[in-house]
Amino acid sequence: MKNTATLLICCPDRKGLVAAIANFLYTYNANILHADQHQDAAEGLFLMRVEWDLADFTLSIDAFGAAFQPIAERFGMQWKLALSANRPKMAIFVSKYDHCLVDLLYRHQSGELACDIPLIISNHDDTRRLAEFYGIPFHVINVTKDNKAESEAQQFALLEQYQVDFIVLARYMQVLSQEFVKRYPQRVINIHHSFLPAFEGAKPYHRAFERGVKLIGATSHYVTEVLDDGPIIEQDVIRISHRDSVEDLIQKGRDLEKVVLSRAVRWHVESRILEYAKKTVIFD
Amino acid sequence: MKNTATLLICCPDRKGLVAAIANFLYTYNANILHADQHQDAAEGLFLMRVEWDLADFTLSIDAFGAAFQPIAERFGMQWKLALSANRPKMAIFVSKYDHCLVDLLYRHQSGELACDIPLIISNHDDTRRLAEFYGIPFHVINVTKDNKAESEAQQFALLEQYQVDFIVLARYMQVLSQEFVKRYPQRVINIHHSFLPAFEGAKPYHRAFERGVKLIGATSHYVTEVLDDGPIIEQDVIRISHRDSVEDLIQKGRDLEKVVLSRAVRWHVESRILEYAKKTVIFD
Amino acid sequence: MKNTATLLICCPDRKGLVAAIANFLYTYNANILHADQHQDAAEGLFLMRVEWDLADFTLSIDAFGAAFQPIAERFGMQWKLALSANRPKMAIFVSKYDHCLVDLLYRHQSGELACDIPLIISNHDDTRRLAEFYGIPFHVINVTKDNKAESEAQQFALLEQYQVDFIVLARYMQVLSQEFVKRYPQRVINIHHSFLPAFEGAKPYHRAFERGVKLIGATSHYVTEVLDDGPIIEQDVIRISHRDSVEDLIQKGRDLEKVVLSRAVRWHVESRILEYAKKTVIFD
Amino acid sequence: MKNTATLLICCPDRKGLVAAIANFLYTYNANILHADQHQDAAEGLFLMRVEWDLADFTLSIDAFGAAFQPIAERFGMQWKLALSANRPKMAIFVSKYDHCLVDLLYRHQSGELACDIPLIISNHDDTRRLAEFYGIPFHVINVTKDNKAESEAQQFALLEQYQVDFIVLARYMQVLSQEFVKRYPQRVINIHHSFLPAFEGAKPYHRAFERGVKLIGATSHYVTEVLDDGPIIEQDVIRISHRDSVEDLIQKGRDLEKVVLSRAVRWHVESRILEYAKKTVIFD
Repeated sequence: MKNTATLLICCPDRKGLVAAIANFLYTYNANILHADQHQDAAEGLFLMRVEWDLADFTLSIDAFGAAFQPIAERFGMQWKLALSANRPKMAIFVSKYDHCLVDLLYRHQSGELACDIPLIISNHDDTRRLAEFYGIPFHVINVTKDNKAESEAQQFALLEQYQVDFIVLARYMQVLSQEFVKRYPQRVINIHHSFLPAFEGAKPYHRAFERGVKLIGATSHYVTEVLDDGPIIEQDVIRISHRDSVEDLIQKGRDLEKVVLSRAVRWHVESRILEYAKKTVIFD
Repeated sequence: MKNTATLLICCPDRKGLVAAIANFLYTYNANILHADQHQDAAEGLFLMRVEWDLADFTLSIDAFGAAFQPIAERFGMQWKLALSANRPKMAIFVSKYDHCLVDLLYRHQSGELACDIPLIISNHDDTRRLAEFYGIPFHVINVTKDNKAESEAQQFALLEQYQVDFIVLARYMQVLSQEFVKRYPQRVINIHHSFLPAFEGAKPYHRAFERGVKLIGATSHYVTEVLDDGPIIEQDVIRISHRDSVEDLIQKGRDLEKVVLSRAVRWHVESRILEYAKKTVIFD
Repeated sequence: MKNTATLLICCPDRKGLVAAIANFLYTYNANILHADQHQDAAEGLFLMRVEWDLADFTLSIDAFGAAFQPIAERFGMQWKLALSANRPKMAIFVSKYDHCLVDLLYRHQSGELACDIPLIISNHDDTRRLAEFYGIPFHVINVTKDNKAESEAQQFALLEQYQVDFIVLARYMQVLSQEFVKRYPQRVINIHHSFLPAFEGAKPYHRAFERGVKLIGATSHYVTEVLDDGPIIEQDVIRISHRDSVEDLIQKGRDLEKVVLSRAVRWHVESRILEYAKKTVIFD
Repeated sequence: MKNTATLLICCPDRKGLVAAIANFLYTYNANILHADQHQDAAEGLFLMRVEWDLADFTLSIDAFGAAFQPIAERFGMQWKLALSANRPKMAIFVSKYDHCLVDLLYRHQSGELACDIPLIISNHDDTRRLAEFYGIPFHVINVTKDNKAESEAQQFALLEQYQVDFIVLARYMQVLSQEFVKRYPQRVINIHHSFLPAFEGAKPYHRAFERGVKLIGATSHYVTEVLDDGPIIEQDVIRISHRDSVEDLIQKGRDLEKVVLSRAVRWHVESRILEYAKKTVIFD
């Protein structure tokens, strides 16, 4: 694994932008590994992701902000720097359905996800043995209608204690409070078991079955204050037929959910996602 | 092309059904070419499609109804017999977007669709030259806010004159009246340019673009009295990305619309569709 | 789970076949749950799968063979009866790549695969801890160039001891001997990491990368005496681009391999596969 | 339609490349619309496509070469400039199967393909009426075993007369001579009706049917001196089953062939394809 830096930029589109960024990086002898950019003509926006090898880079990371600030101000940039050496810390929330959890833990172990998993939080004890197999601390926090504020307070305490950067809801069957969502803006990834915006809310497979659709889907998205309405990160579908019962939909959907959620997590971990206008750009 | 008969059956599921049908066909020396059946456990229904060669069949088609009636009554069957010799008559309704029309006419000419096309009806003159190229009578019936009843009366007259069996709305940009829909129940096929039930109604590509979905879809369905709510016959999707503008969505969507509509038309023509519980079974 | 019987039939296509089978089942009061049949016009063959509930069935399973034999002889049938109560015993062979093994064990535990897994055999010790987590006996049998006959003899002894019905090669990196293949005809399922017949043999991802294909695939098939040439059970593909390195292909391919192999295993377990003319019919 | 220039670059990857190009374009006040680049780490190559609006560009196109030459030499670039104002001239070669021809002509008419079609060449007269409908000159050149050199001489004369830039073989059933291929390097696009490298050569659908594959494919590629071996531009597949006869494969495959070929043509027309190491990079 190379030691790299990744810069994400979003700003109004103007001439000279790429030249300014490229000259800056060249000045400090950056060896660019990947660069991808997007101009949104309708919104007049410029979005960019550039990743470079830090081996020959002559600017210290501590001094990066001060050195880059003049360019950022000149072009009105929102920007973010991520270092491969700083692996983000991901908390996984799960309830009883464990297929997404199993999938994420295996992918993490096999090196697909360049993040750390300091803890798993569940409202049930069912997946404890699995967490232990992978050596991840496991915390049960019971959630009821009446104790949501209290249970979320416990969750916040754990998230801060473990310095968690982002949270993945791996089929976690509780709706987060507005406070929770505001606390982790664009830092909570959910998997919804439908092709959003179709079948928002509860029991999407049952409703897909009743409507008689010919494909079922899954959608990973950032959680916002409106249920199932956040920016979509990834979606996929699979074909079904009249031979499939609701149970078959649920089973086939599991394979979709796993794949769609894991792609979203991977792109988040690798700083490949830029959010704007309630949508996402994926630099893959 | 073989001279065949196709029987579609829907009834409560009961023991002895298949034996009764198979014995009936064997009695008259039917050479079964294709048979497909489906049991819906939740609804307690039995659905079947069976197609046989008429070459050795010893029962005359005129006598089929009387001979089959005792079985149909015993099991409470809804049934329908279709003959390959009686090609269904399809009317195509179109506005200005001509991609689905071009596709259907070409497939028809190349032998993919075993139906006749006695006429095309449009509210614009734009596709007349195309209709003439394929030698199909073309009728322009102007539709405005104020003359819908009158224009539909003209349409009904043409549909009756040409003895039309079913109607395909090939991106026809007018909503049919309730009266029209009631007159042709399960006999009007529409193509909607979204993955229903997402983006029902107007401008689905624009709304898909705004929502930031990662796949766009198309849906063919039977037209019912509720807009975009009829039984779904076929759906498909294609991947898009942030690089795609609304215009790109519209262009990519055209390919989907063509393929999805043509599959639905083919299945309808070949008596492969059974509707029940607001859904369709496709015996493909 | 219902207590069911499944009958697979393959024979020359003749009139009266369906009537004979349906009458036989009706005579003994079978409640048919699923029936699917296929006529291959080119080969003149009839293939059928029928599954019924044993609850009301008045013929004892022990007497089935004798009762069905006259029909089987009359029509020259090859047939096979499978009982849901007799779960097939599956051995998994694995080397170091563990993604397919992890996937199969999780699906088995979650109830997707109606079989038993009496043992795992590996030529390496790497996956022992995983096997123990799922409580499956784990045997290491070392394989070298020089000891193949000996190591296979050990494998045969274990397979017989555990009364194994079929074997899944979950990325097992050894070629089985002709003797092995003959001993388990149509009972060894392999996963090959390409879209066969493209890239048969070694290192398919590397060769796909070099050839510059735009999709990579995976293929599950029965093992025959010719490498990667057995009847194909299932295939699928995923899109790649110039941005993908060989390592990316390997990683993306893992998701394909898991899904494709698990479908093949499920269909085999549920007696949904009929082999003929070096091909498979899947009654799904 | 904007008046734009597109620059395609391929060279050894070195620091300062992007800065040099961006500075050059900024110097002449280019308004960059799209930029995409790719670093191939294994080959040590840098590949780029950049498209800009010519409205504000202060360098005349005639002077572009001289002005850019120093940068090109410094970095050892192969480069090519394409102007949206210079629509490429495409000749279509066709035999009797007309589905790809119909598709290309319709897409061209509807504005999807930003090229001119000065002529169609066929070895049969069958598609003349279609060519006339779209107003494209149509030439029949008979090809036999014995007159290949002579017939190609006639083809060359026409291609030169009409100043053709590239050739699309829309299911043209003749193999081009080595001389032809050398004359139009990377300028002849073919559609092969299989997922290459599976089923190279004749009758791929028949061979796919015999092998029992579960998906069929289509591949568009540049023609080189080895049959079906040129750099792949695009591929796609569609699922089939045991219910599909060879005729069904041929019919389903037609839809694939049309879509795959038209994507390749579009990318070629829009200068989105860079060829290297016998592969293609698609800047889409």
